[in-house]
Amino acid sequence: MSARQTIPGPTVKRLTLYLREAERRLAAGESQVSSRELGRSLGLGDTQIRKDLSHVGQFGQAGVGYRLHSLVEQLRGILGKDRIWRTAVVGAGRLGQAIMSYGPFAREGFEICAVFDAAPDMVGKEVGGHRIRPMEDLEMLVREREILLGIVAVPREAAQQVADRLIEAGVLGLLNFAPTRLDVGDRASVASVDLSSRLERLAFQVSLGLKGSIDAED
Amino acid sequence: MSARQTIPGPTVKRLTLYLREAERRLAAGESQVSSRELGRSLGLGDTQIRKDLSHVGQFGQAGVGYRLHSLVEQLRGILGKDRIWRTAVVGAGRLGQAIMSYGPFAREGFEICAVFDAAPDMVGKEVGGHRIRPMEDLEMLVREREILLGIVAVPREAAQQVADRLIEAGVLGLLNFAPTRLDVGDRASVASVDLSSRLERLAFQVSLGLKGSIDAED
Repeated sequence: MSARQTIPGPTVKRLTLYLREAERRLAAGESQVSSRELGRSLGLGDTQIRKDLSHVGQFGQAGVGYRLHSLVEQLRGILGKDRIWRTAVVGAGRLGQAIMSYGPFAREGFEICAVFDAAPDMVGKEVGGHRIRPMEDLEMLVREREILLGIVAVPREAAQQVADRLIEAGVLGLLNFAPTRLDVGDRASVASVDLSSRLERLAFQVSLGLKGSIDAED
Repeated sequence: MSARQTIPGPTVKRLTLYLREAERRLAAGESQVSSRELGRSLGLGDTQIRKDLSHVGQFGQAGVGYRLHSLVEQLRGILGKDRIWRTAVVGAGRLGQAIMSYGPFAREGFEICAVFDAAPDMVGKEVGGHRIRPMEDLEMLVREREILLGIVAVPREAAQQVADRLIEAGVLGLLNFAPTRLDVGDRASVASVDLSSRLERLAFQVSLGLKGSIDAED
């Protein structure tokens, strides 16, 4: 645990990229990869990659590189991916439905265990293999199913109340799609996906005539 | 233009937050706001806010703060929001549909001018007021409708080709939802929304027992 505590946010982000690329290569039948090859695939410098991976106890061999099997195993452990994350989705509108049917979630260890919606005509319907539950059942089901993560896909006005209820029921992490800041204090972790602000920043770049990816600075 | 060129990415992100909050307050009938009030609403320090806003030529008055009307106007100009961004959506699956029906996009100056899909049974259907067009029409419609931004909501395997075609047709900025890195070189700007990696980082925070928002570091 102590090694993990010292890894800064941007490094964690790169570790998830390394893991994804290493898994892809392993699945393709490769057994090792050099920092240079990783760098070329990911658009990163090989010095950066060697530094990041040495943080997590991986040291490539000269002329050989990293053994993919060991690299994947180590990164999965460090990133908490050697477990299943039980997840609730609140809001079964178009966005919630898109999230439910988003393939990578399931493949990467996130299991949707309950889906809630406030609209009476949505409750009871089945979407993407999940029966939509009424909001009244939220606390009970989150506790009963030991759900740790919550995805907030409700309108802005309802987001804070939904967050409060999820946290109260035991959720430790929230992924927020509502275009508002959630106040969770020190009760939970929260990450936001603000589609508008992303598009705004892209438009800003374009209006300046700037080229290339704006993701690196995130 | 030169003032805008010098604004670093994280500051731009905060400027979009200030604009949204200032617009909200203006719509609520307020006429001025202090850096302290802004800070409280957004979870930021007032020193940070004063510094950011002085960058864009806004100086609050002691005891009064910023005039909201002037603040909104100035921020809109700087962020390129005093114009309409003509946008194409490629991929009309669940994610594409969620994006099309995402209210804030339209409210904030992004106009969806064309929607494309490769699936023959999708073409011709109407979704969210947009008739879905076949991929063959992409180049023609992007040129004809002077579309500058493209939203890539196709599977990973198709994403790079779609990006290349959009850029070739004249698109200058791409918002990429496919879980892959797009190689655009210096031909366009690209911003990615990687839902999995966001959820992964959240899970990582939770597994460490860390609380609070992980957005600030982005």
